[in-house]
Amino acid sequence: MANSEGNKLWGGRFVGNTDPIMEKFNASIAYDQRMWDADIRGSKAYVKALEKAELVTTEEMNSILHGMEQISEEWAKGAFVVKPGDEDIHTANERRLKELIGEPAGKLHTGRSRNDQVVTDMRIWLCDAIATLKEDALQLVATMVERASVEIDVLFPGYTHMQRAQPIRWSHWILSHAVAVSRDVERLQEIRSRTNVLPLGSGAIAGTPFNIDRELLRKELEFDGISINSMDATGERDFVAEFLFWASLCLTHLSKMAEDLLLYSTKEFSFIALADAYSTGSSLMPQKKNADSLELIRSKAGRVLGREDKEAMFDCFDTLHGALRVTTGVMSTLKINRPVMEAALSPDMLATDLAYYLVRKGLPFREAHGLSGRAVFQAESKNVPLNQLTVEDLAAISPLFDRDVAAVWDYSSSVEQYSAPGGTARSSVTAQVQHLRRWLQDHTQ
Amino acid sequence: MANSEGNKLWGGRFVGNTDPIMEKFNASIAYDQRMWDADIRGSKAYVKALEKAELVTTEEMNSILHGMEQISEEWAKGAFVVKPGDEDIHTANERRLKELIGEPAGKLHTGRSRNDQVVTDMRIWLCDAIATLKEDALQLVATMVERASVEIDVLFPGYTHMQRAQPIRWSHWILSHAVAVSRDVERLQEIRSRTNVLPLGSGAIAGTPFNIDRELLRKELEFDGISINSMDATGERDFVAEFLFWASLCLTHLSKMAEDLLLYSTKEFSFIALADAYSTGSSLMPQKKNADSLELIRSKAGRVLGREDKEAMFDCFDTLHGALRVTTGVMSTLKINRPVMEAALSPDMLATDLAYYLVRKGLPFREAHGLSGRAVFQAESKNVPLNQLTVEDLAAISPLFDRDVAAVWDYSSSVEQYSAPGGTARSSVTAQVQHLRRWLQDHTQ
Amino acid sequence: MANSEGNKLWGGRFVGNTDPIMEKFNASIAYDQRMWDADIRGSKAYVKALEKAELVTTEEMNSILHGMEQISEEWAKGAFVVKPGDEDIHTANERRLKELIGEPAGKLHTGRSRNDQVVTDMRIWLCDAIATLKEDALQLVATMVERASVEIDVLFPGYTHMQRAQPIRWSHWILSHAVAVSRDVERLQEIRSRTNVLPLGSGAIAGTPFNIDRELLRKELEFDGISINSMDATGERDFVAEFLFWASLCLTHLSKMAEDLLLYSTKEFSFIALADAYSTGSSLMPQKKNADSLELIRSKAGRVLGREDKEAMFDCFDTLHGALRVTTGVMSTLKINRPVMEAALSPDMLATDLAYYLVRKGLPFREAHGLSGRAVFQAESKNVPLNQLTVEDLAAISPLFDRDVAAVWDYSSSVEQYSAPGGTARSSVTAQVQHLRRWLQDHTQ
Amino acid sequence: MANSEGNKLWGGRFVGNTDPIMEKFNASIAYDQRMWDADIRGSKAYVKALEKAELVTTEEMNSILHGMEQISEEWAKGAFVVKPGDEDIHTANERRLKELIGEPAGKLHTGRSRNDQVVTDMRIWLCDAIATLKEDALQLVATMVERASVEIDVLFPGYTHMQRAQPIRWSHWILSHAVAVSRDVERLQEIRSRTNVLPLGSGAIAGTPFNIDRELLRKELEFDGISINSMDATGERDFVAEFLFWASLCLTHLSKMAEDLLLYSTKEFSFIALADAYSTGSSLMPQKKNADSLELIRSKAGRVLGREDKEAMFDCFDTLHGALRVTTGVMSTLKINRPVMEAALSPDMLATDLAYYLVRKGLPFREAHGLSGRAVFQAESKNVPLNQLTVEDLAAISPLFDRDVAAVWDYSSSVEQYSAPGGTARSSVTAQVQHLRRWLQDHTQ
Repeated sequence: MANSEGNKLWGGRFVGNTDPIMEKFNASIAYDQRMWDADIRGSKAYVKALEKAELVTTEEMNSILHGMEQISEEWAKGAFVVKPGDEDIHTANERRLKELIGEPAGKLHTGRSRNDQVVTDMRIWLCDAIATLKEDALQLVATMVERASVEIDVLFPGYTHMQRAQPIRWSHWILSHAVAVSRDVERLQEIRSRTNVLPLGSGAIAGTPFNIDRELLRKELEFDGISINSMDATGERDFVAEFLFWASLCLTHLSKMAEDLLLYSTKEFSFIALADAYSTGSSLMPQKKNADSLELIRSKAGRVLGREDKEAMFDCFDTLHGALRVTTGVMSTLKINRPVMEAALSPDMLATDLAYYLVRKGLPFREAHGLSGRAVFQAESKNVPLNQLTVEDLAAISPLFDRDVAAVWDYSSSVEQYSAPGGTARSSVTAQVQHLRRWLQDHTQ
Repeated sequence: MANSEGNKLWGGRFVGNTDPIMEKFNASIAYDQRMWDADIRGSKAYVKALEKAELVTTEEMNSILHGMEQISEEWAKGAFVVKPGDEDIHTANERRLKELIGEPAGKLHTGRSRNDQVVTDMRIWLCDAIATLKEDALQLVATMVERASVEIDVLFPGYTHMQRAQPIRWSHWILSHAVAVSRDVERLQEIRSRTNVLPLGSGAIAGTPFNIDRELLRKELEFDGISINSMDATGERDFVAEFLFWASLCLTHLSKMAEDLLLYSTKEFSFIALADAYSTGSSLMPQKKNADSLELIRSKAGRVLGREDKEAMFDCFDTLHGALRVTTGVMSTLKINRPVMEAALSPDMLATDLAYYLVRKGLPFREAHGLSGRAVFQAESKNVPLNQLTVEDLAAISPLFDRDVAAVWDYSSSVEQYSAPGGTARSSVTAQVQHLRRWLQDHTQ
Repeated sequence: MANSEGNKLWGGRFVGNTDPIMEKFNASIAYDQRMWDADIRGSKAYVKALEKAELVTTEEMNSILHGMEQISEEWAKGAFVVKPGDEDIHTANERRLKELIGEPAGKLHTGRSRNDQVVTDMRIWLCDAIATLKEDALQLVATMVERASVEIDVLFPGYTHMQRAQPIRWSHWILSHAVAVSRDVERLQEIRSRTNVLPLGSGAIAGTPFNIDRELLRKELEFDGISINSMDATGERDFVAEFLFWASLCLTHLSKMAEDLLLYSTKEFSFIALADAYSTGSSLMPQKKNADSLELIRSKAGRVLGREDKEAMFDCFDTLHGALRVTTGVMSTLKINRPVMEAALSPDMLATDLAYYLVRKGLPFREAHGLSGRAVFQAESKNVPLNQLTVEDLAAISPLFDRDVAAVWDYSSSVEQYSAPGGTARSSVTAQVQHLRRWLQDHTQ
Repeated sequence: MANSEGNKLWGGRFVGNTDPIMEKFNASIAYDQRMWDADIRGSKAYVKALEKAELVTTEEMNSILHGMEQISEEWAKGAFVVKPGDEDIHTANERRLKELIGEPAGKLHTGRSRNDQVVTDMRIWLCDAIATLKEDALQLVATMVERASVEIDVLFPGYTHMQRAQPIRWSHWILSHAVAVSRDVERLQEIRSRTNVLPLGSGAIAGTPFNIDRELLRKELEFDGISINSMDATGERDFVAEFLFWASLCLTHLSKMAEDLLLYSTKEFSFIALADAYSTGSSLMPQKKNADSLELIRSKAGRVLGREDKEAMFDCFDTLHGALRVTTGVMSTLKINRPVMEAALSPDMLATDLAYYLVRKGLPFREAHGLSGRAVFQAESKNVPLNQLTVEDLAAISPLFDRDVAAVWDYSSSVEQYSAPGGTARSSVTAQVQHLRRWLQDHTQ
């Protein structure tokens, strides 16, 4: 008797039919077909272990391997036809195998559970995805480091709380984001090491009762290790949770960078101009050139957390793959407006230097900070820039102020003071560039 | 010059090309094509307002209306072909309109912004979706209420902290979940009232400079009200956030119910059996009959929060539409095992009644609670059920215990005590059934 | 034998001691003592119902009422001493009652469960909290409406995607945020209507077996309705989930407004200056004046979602109570810099008007949009503002351009075009002010 | 002039007063005082660097060091008095230092920003917290491993989808959770390596302009590395986000284990009984013994994600510190009911073995699975246990069934089949115990 459940793996026992709404609610083929290649690789390895355990003959193994290769070609060419009843990629591939090679197809699942198969496929797929994303992220870091190296002499305002704080190098800003992404790469490698563990051979829950050589499976599938406990192996999705968190954290970094760039690209800041390739217009306002690429990236943060399992894993990969490449595009093509950037430096940003002037003359910092604050206040009251206060004005605030205070008002020498490791002095930024170049070499190849 | 950007709405000004990665990253047609009908209805209403404002002629209006009907038929038949460059449903429909009717198509967007159009389409679509979900939820409540009415005489253990607490009616359990879903329906109506507000006529941000009759638009599109401020109207997505939260809360309710039913369907509880139509088997273990429908519903909770905008709106709708209907299916087909349910009632569940026996003889509850606890302890020590303690045993705990204590050990009369509104007595549960039947009448029609 | 568990409500049966780590892990008194007043009000009402049901004598009732008033005074004066073993506010108050009045205290809990009591207290507390927040929100809306009314003649750039879009009124921006907060007030009222339902009289799960008059309880505690099902009543926390979501959505609105204001307060925009009362300085940089109030509010969004129960409820209230009042303070004290705001209007923001000029001469909008875009491009190429293109320049783009195009370059008349409901014309903004003033009257008193 | 802002670090410039609501909204002393020790250690190291850079004299350094020790003692004794104006722990400690030693206190902040100081303190505090949690987690793993070793011969049902699946060892279940927690320890170490990086010496944003020896700071504070970029160093909170995620994942593991134990402790399962020390009673129902410890742990999952910064960091630590220790307590004291556990094994759980019987006779698994399913169906139809089907019954299903099928119905030999790595055979579980014992040795000391 042919019924619509004929393809279901548990076809033997049921009497009633499945509610079609339930069938649809339960199906995952729409998204998990992305794992077609991982599923085929997993089955090809498994049949080799079955043959070694004498659960299939060499001939049956070859027939299954050959069938799997045919299915692989069908997927690669876009010729595979998903049929009703193919609830997931695993059912679909096995159904097709049976059509192609007949009886021996029924032996492939011996001692393997669906959970076993799902989690193996997910780990294979995710290891590939992680490799791609690592590549994307390295590309971005490399782009940023080289840009930082070229534009090292451009100064502009560093902001805290969105207010002008201190003069810094434009490259210092670039590198502050590059190091964040470099940490993301390191985290990704740690996740890979926990993802790259073979679960296959765990059965439903209790393990495998046949003589399945798990070490053979590990080698065939190029995993680094083997799971320790079969219940844990089929049930845990920590590697997905870790990947989703990673995606979320990496997007937060791209988002913060995008937020700064959005600000710098406003008419009011005018520090940078995006390439047209990363901008869009308005359907209503002809003059608009929107930094849509940055807005999209900024808005992706917060998107990925809190979802679960396969669908989220695919979605996160797509989002990150796009976001990293678009950010690389943006960073390699944007143009900076150096005169505007440098014109944005204003003398009040040297108020800290003014306080340090007094510190160097022996005043405790807290007192010096207060006196410099008073100088700022007086400049505001007189409606002049801070560096236009006369030595007399300053001397009225503190007798320690003298003619040599004039040396404070130089942005370049201000910046050059910050030469300790991590600072914004030319030498320090150059050291950061070199550090990241070495890091890139260590993480590429 | 024909370039790949020919269809883009802001084609006039750009020089460079868009990065194809950026194009893909930016496109939403893959999911927002679900709003094709809402988009067409919105445009048909808008062209009537344009005609009234003399921005298109009557002839042009009719041409646009006719073209839109043709596009509508193409979508309905599945014949609409999405082309490269159709980044969203709005661009796609307008591109097709131009192919069909030529020049006048270019007048349709006069005074309208993309934001304006997107948010109008979303509100139209969501109002329809809400109507469907309301229907689904009412169906579920009706199913539960009728089942509660039929099975009102079945007693079983009520649990707190997963431990047997007090005997209750099975119908009392059913109705506890039905009232939660009925509140969801009420919330949905409130969300509808805020969703059903016309934004169209808000332009990009400043409003519309033409004589667009927003009241005409409101009537054409059957909205209940008109937005108050154009900036707010194009920018706010509160109605989506509210809908996502609603979906999340409703799923939490279905999830809690599913969690209870999962427990009741374990071999160890054996209170209920799911219909085969809502169960699945195992690919490995032939004896397994899994309550997959319940597991799926349970796991959907927590899924929907924290995502944003259109894609989440569609996803939530699908999830809820499926979950509500599958739950209705489960609840209308599961079979209960009344003997097992009633056998699960045990005398220690009447320990509270034992305390109340003493309260009725004048003891303060705290003291009575302590003495009843001692009786439980003694029964455990003697390894007998609580109701097998002799009157002497009990009298040793408190002299207030007498022969009439025997009347305590009756589950039916225990349950009948709880006749205050909301309680588990037959009269009280019947009142709840009647309340919900009236509520259903008020909310249907 | 007196042991450390003497005060625990279930003291009768246990043999072993509780692990002190477990005791600490389980305790909630540190935060739920905020409900002391709600707990006392609940108990005072409940003892009246006990007296009516003849479960306590009138004398016992009076003794309990009197004791509760004493406890209330102790809390109000800060004199209540929490003791070890007081795991929550309910235990603490009952322990103290027993110290004060002795035996009859043990009768207070007759027929009432802890769950019953907890959820009743939470609903009482939250209704009060909602009233306070409604007041806070109305104050904010009123402040914004009055400011909008006073500064109605100030024009400045409206932004989309952080790029200058169209000239709008400053008041239009203010009101776009005020209407969002006004919707929050409406949502808060809906939540109140579902919070303000009496659960007391639901017992642990099955209801109350005594003749407790729930209508009397409802009146005493000023609830609007009575819960329908006792299991649902003690278990559901939907009203907390709704409140947390409300808090999250309202914070999102305050956050968006804060984000705009942060931008407007940068040196580069310089549209507004915060009052010193809402700014802070830097411990390092003497010149800094940080808009910390805005940064704090901006960062609170996203904070509150996804937590549960009492602790979150308290935290959300505090956050919103602070955020609404600080925002009101900011909005009532900030100073705008009108000359800078108006100077930020630039001719390219009238490119839409330029397109509309052509539309009014009969061109389809799509074509007009393209031609205006070309004008923008040409102005950029010639490095002149858009309004400095000569009529000849424009005529080369389209012969429809004529001398009368000069009338386009007026920001005030541009703004006045947007007179449809919701637009930025003076009349339309005035109508919005009046609408919100009426709304405030309806929602106050 | 003494005003209320006297203690604020930026006291020099402001004219207006801070709104007290704003002050409260901005204060963090209520929770960040937990970092008092980290703050003092950080300042003691910093003053040594200041002395080396000749920004304070040796005498001043000693005075500051001595003052800091006094403050440390005050905190340790609970004698430190927080005063109005102490907005955070950093201000509080410096205010107190000034009271104790006068003028030189003002030199301590030279070249250091508040951000610098906050992030340094957080990293010091979190490294300590991580050490504590690692200890807690190792304790839990050790408890579980030893219990698994002792109770290795107890069999009970393994469940999937909450339905009985296959017989497994109780120790197999224990170890499946132990390996999850062991992975948590490994993750914690990775987080520690990124947390244990010195930011101090980064100033506000640009670095430090003085000759501050960051390597000296690193050694004094026992950090493993030094931050690369000063902007990144003061701004990034990735280590907190990682810790929050870690806490969330670890809680998920404890929560899943608690969920299983809750189920096993129901009356219906009766596999385990919690010690009284980890149970609580009911204020209403005298017989109740609630597994509150497990319920609390179960409900903590999902609590911690999505919050930010210091407050969340403290909260997560407390939650995990409690949850890990309570779980250890539960696992070391619960009693199992071996007869009930083994009685719960039922012949249908060997349906997979029945299929494998046929596989071993040469049938493809899919076919064998179907035939075994038919046997299950027939047993259900005849209302007998699966092992009570006669050989004739079975032979009617497949002629391959013979007398030797009787050997299938033995739970112990069924379990012993699963001897591949990770399986539930005695040898395999013993190997897991040994693996984890070695792992514990590697991770302790």
